[in-house]
Amino acid sequence: MSDSVSTGSAGSALPPEFHDIAKRVNNWGRWGAEDEIGTLNLITDEVVREAAATIRTGRRVPLALPLREDGVQTGLIPGRINPLHTMVQINQELFGPGTVATSDDAVTMGLQAATHWDALTHASHSGKIYNGRPADTITAHTGARFSGIDKVPHLVSRGVLLDVARTKGVDRLPADHAVTPEDLEQAEEFAGVTVRAGDIVLVRTGQIQTYLVGDKHAYAYPSPGLSIRTPEWFHARDVAAVANDTLTFEIFPPETENLWLPVHALHLVEMGMLQGQNWNLEKLSTACAEVSRYSFLLSAMPEPFIGGTGTPVAPVAVL
Amino acid sequence: MSDSVSTGSAGSALPPEFHDIAKRVNNWGRWGAEDEIGTLNLITDEVVREAAATIRTGRRVPLALPLREDGVQTGLIPGRINPLHTMVQINQELFGPGTVATSDDAVTMGLQAATHWDALTHASHSGKIYNGRPADTITAHTGARFSGIDKVPHLVSRGVLLDVARTKGVDRLPADHAVTPEDLEQAEEFAGVTVRAGDIVLVRTGQIQTYLVGDKHAYAYPSPGLSIRTPEWFHARDVAAVANDTLTFEIFPPETENLWLPVHALHLVEMGMLQGQNWNLEKLSTACAEVSRYSFLLSAMPEPFIGGTGTPVAPVAVL
Amino acid sequence: MSDSVSTGSAGSALPPEFHDIAKRVNNWGRWGAEDEIGTLNLITDEVVREAAATIRTGRRVPLALPLREDGVQTGLIPGRINPLHTMVQINQELFGPGTVATSDDAVTMGLQAATHWDALTHASHSGKIYNGRPADTITAHTGARFSGIDKVPHLVSRGVLLDVARTKGVDRLPADHAVTPEDLEQAEEFAGVTVRAGDIVLVRTGQIQTYLVGDKHAYAYPSPGLSIRTPEWFHARDVAAVANDTLTFEIFPPETENLWLPVHALHLVEMGMLQGQNWNLEKLSTACAEVSRYSFLLSAMPEPFIGGTGTPVAPVAVL
Amino acid sequence: MSDSVSTGSAGSALPPEFHDIAKRVNNWGRWGAEDEIGTLNLITDEVVREAAATIRTGRRVPLALPLREDGVQTGLIPGRINPLHTMVQINQELFGPGTVATSDDAVTMGLQAATHWDALTHASHSGKIYNGRPADTITAHTGARFSGIDKVPHLVSRGVLLDVARTKGVDRLPADHAVTPEDLEQAEEFAGVTVRAGDIVLVRTGQIQTYLVGDKHAYAYPSPGLSIRTPEWFHARDVAAVANDTLTFEIFPPETENLWLPVHALHLVEMGMLQGQNWNLEKLSTACAEVSRYSFLLSAMPEPFIGGTGTPVAPVAVL
Repeated sequence: MSDSVSTGSAGSALPPEFHDIAKRVNNWGRWGAEDEIGTLNLITDEVVREAAATIRTGRRVPLALPLREDGVQTGLIPGRINPLHTMVQINQELFGPGTVATSDDAVTMGLQAATHWDALTHASHSGKIYNGRPADTITAHTGARFSGIDKVPHLVSRGVLLDVARTKGVDRLPADHAVTPEDLEQAEEFAGVTVRAGDIVLVRTGQIQTYLVGDKHAYAYPSPGLSIRTPEWFHARDVAAVANDTLTFEIFPPETENLWLPVHALHLVEMGMLQGQNWNLEKLSTACAEVSRYSFLLSAMPEPFIGGTGTPVAPVAVL
Repeated sequence: MSDSVSTGSAGSALPPEFHDIAKRVNNWGRWGAEDEIGTLNLITDEVVREAAATIRTGRRVPLALPLREDGVQTGLIPGRINPLHTMVQINQELFGPGTVATSDDAVTMGLQAATHWDALTHASHSGKIYNGRPADTITAHTGARFSGIDKVPHLVSRGVLLDVARTKGVDRLPADHAVTPEDLEQAEEFAGVTVRAGDIVLVRTGQIQTYLVGDKHAYAYPSPGLSIRTPEWFHARDVAAVANDTLTFEIFPPETENLWLPVHALHLVEMGMLQGQNWNLEKLSTACAEVSRYSFLLSAMPEPFIGGTGTPVAPVAVL
Repeated sequence: MSDSVSTGSAGSALPPEFHDIAKRVNNWGRWGAEDEIGTLNLITDEVVREAAATIRTGRRVPLALPLREDGVQTGLIPGRINPLHTMVQINQELFGPGTVATSDDAVTMGLQAATHWDALTHASHSGKIYNGRPADTITAHTGARFSGIDKVPHLVSRGVLLDVARTKGVDRLPADHAVTPEDLEQAEEFAGVTVRAGDIVLVRTGQIQTYLVGDKHAYAYPSPGLSIRTPEWFHARDVAAVANDTLTFEIFPPETENLWLPVHALHLVEMGMLQGQNWNLEKLSTACAEVSRYSFLLSAMPEPFIGGTGTPVAPVAVL
Repeated sequence: MSDSVSTGSAGSALPPEFHDIAKRVNNWGRWGAEDEIGTLNLITDEVVREAAATIRTGRRVPLALPLREDGVQTGLIPGRINPLHTMVQINQELFGPGTVATSDDAVTMGLQAATHWDALTHASHSGKIYNGRPADTITAHTGARFSGIDKVPHLVSRGVLLDVARTKGVDRLPADHAVTPEDLEQAEEFAGVTVRAGDIVLVRTGQIQTYLVGDKHAYAYPSPGLSIRTPEWFHARDVAAVANDTLTFEIFPPETENLWLPVHALHLVEMGMLQGQNWNLEKLSTACAEVSRYSFLLSAMPEPFIGGTGTPVAPVAVL
């Protein structure tokens, strides 16, 4: 397929640069050898109580893109299809003429196609997934036997919007902008909030505006996104999960030639930290700016697909 | 199909009994001729602030069944298939040998197959959907043009568990038990809570236990469920949405011969009130009983399928 | 969707020009009021015996495009998705370690997505389908209750290749070339064959070469295809079915402004004659030219989807 | 899943009995190291010419079961779902009001769900597929890289019905009847035909009658089917492919305790011979008996799914 990322790229083993960071952020064994949810362990009841305490107005801001056939996928990632919504019943009087009628529908979609969470098992490297388990525990038969999205019981915590674009006074970051720890700290300062253990951090680049105005190819890549330097920052702050408003999550093409998807590997495999992509943070940006508050209760429950390596999610911020 | 509900049933126009109740609970025009979300209008910022104030421990209780091929559907409802989860990539080194590998998956499922919300357009009668629009605005091409699930921007409110089974001191209600307004008030008293405008009411029958122990046919029907008398009670209280732990939502077979799905028609079409089915309320029942509190913040965000007449949902109660 | 055919086109009732031809080619009632297969009635045992007699070498030429995610669909036709092939088992030792392993797969696809037959019910006009039945007998619940693809018991007959491109000495016809009855007769003469009752006629334009070299947008349209004048020719010859090597089958954009898909309506609705699209006739063209014979036994069995308004097909010519 | 074959079965390495037969029937390398289609190489042009010569009446007998949600699958084989047929357009006037309307549909189904061919890659053992290639060349990304169903260019040959049930004077064989070489020879004699190189052999047990009368569980198993002794017979005759009218193809439960699916492994892996299941041979049995002829031209074209380990097929016998 001519615009596929899977062809024409030279393979390459992971460089020392990667392994150095990996050692510093690795969480394997931190929550026991049996653990399957990684940094979500950091979301304690107390964190949630404090998240609840951030609610002042009761305003709710949804963060999911509509699920539609004309979604963000372009064919770039083989097999990741946009939602195909079909009707299986339309006003069907199942019990006879004149009775109450019902309509039913069905969908086929890639679990990572729209606004989604990557499960920890979405990435592997060197034959391993999070917590050192063998990658071949993911099979067609069972999906992810360990650390599938079904192992996440719930996902509610304090959310913090680090609005990098607004902090920098731009609508959206340039396509070649790798978001750095310094950018995150600048956004923290702008927001007047300190990221702490158990938080879900939302990093806004503004990139999703390109999709919203109809240019899904421009949205896909080149794209701003997280720098390979950010996992250490999230690790230091004991962040529970990170999501942003891009397709690729990390800057793409990558910062280092032939080092593809390093942030995926560091977050998902080494740290055991969930990532979210294609989150629409535009209205949240406006809402937070209006009240000059950038922390809120965030509910972003995965759909519990048994063995899923990802899930669509309809997150909501309650301010 | 031998065990289908669609064959062998005599049709029948809706009786005066139905139309009498319909008149009393009808909300058409209440929120304007353009309205597409009905009683969700009752969830105000203030309601959500009060919902937030119910959070004491920060404990989160998920209410969705796992999404799996061996789900609750039995073939009874044509076209409503259990989730089929398949892998499209397994540890695929898209960028060459030795690079970071990714796994991707896809799903095909009925939108009403598992723990779900019915959109207002899931039911119609006499050629009409909610707010008096023509039922034929639902098409294969667009799905529900009006009052599709995508029109629900967010769904967070105060949740109230009316634990009818626990109130009556039984594990689960008998299959022929129609839950009445008196049952709901008894459960309110037991819970020490008063249902009020904007609440999402969860009615526990215990019926889902039959599925949880492996008997999905027993779960399907006969099933306890809401009586045709309950819509008036929900209407009087200005409830925003109702969900329970059964496949059929209302008692099935119905209370009145040849009056099929009257509660669906009253809630969805007449009142414009969302309904949820197959919610697993077992752990929530225990959690509420432990702290003797039956109200909480409930987040139950629909997946925003354009034109969808339903949606899987992964609700979470925060206590 | 920006490149969709469904937007921006002015609607328009069917003009007298259309209705005049419709009257002349109409077959309603010709095979009885109960008939659901139209011109396929013309394929008698005798026709098939004669088809068998055309086999000289035993050479088989397949006519289907490979079924793949990167197929001919571009998103132009909403909901008509290319095949998504996924694995549900890979070398799974279902009976325990060391036992025989099996692999299983699943597909989601539009029935008209690749090389296919349109069922007679693929088109309707003025509220009618073939044989005068109401178009609303096609529902989401049952699909096409009448004249679905499942009603075609078998599809084997004499095939005749009318190689219009080769006859004209070009690789492929220009995009604005409407294939006329005169073109068909010229190709008949070139082929040394006379089309007769019960034949399946394959009309080669060469257009599919654009897809085969990777330009699926050029393949889609503008496209050469059948002229509105050809249905009368097929009707006069009592042809059983017609297929060609284009996406749109008929010339597109159409010959008459605002008269969209007239050939579809004439063939499927008026005549009750099956049409095939996206047939790869390139190798067949070569094979026929090599032996200077353009008739053969053609087997093009529909997959018997109950209520289907189309079907993928893997046709084979036996020379 | 409670009625799944995948649980509760003790694993077991393949016994010497199996390996002895495997050695005798092995075709690896017979058609070169690059070969991907095995015994289909035996279908020569000459074989097809002779097949054409068997056509006397021109009568066509279709052999596929209808494709429907209420198909033969019971959930026994995880992930192998019956066809879910849904509408994506119903009488949609894509070009505006009053224009020609079209209907489109989509399907999701297991490739082995209904009447189908197993591709050679449907089975593996000891880490190998046909021709000694590694089994791990089947991936979620590509499906079967070698010997996928797309590698079969066409499938037309002489078909021979070995009507074991009719030969024995019974409607259908008992569930514990393993069809032996002696049974096949008895049926040959009854048919007055000699199976020879390149033939496609259809073995009728009558088992599919249980499905046709509505008992799909009885159809599934226990089931009569081929004995482990038959692969040697097919090998000796140089048969090109074999199909029958059962779900499991071979007798199930198997003849030897803990030796599961030996015929699959011998046919697909060792011999490189395609197998077909769920073929409805009832009408063919009657048709052949009426004319006392049991050979015919058989067209059974696979749908060319790239990387497919199976395919639905709509076979047709031309007598």
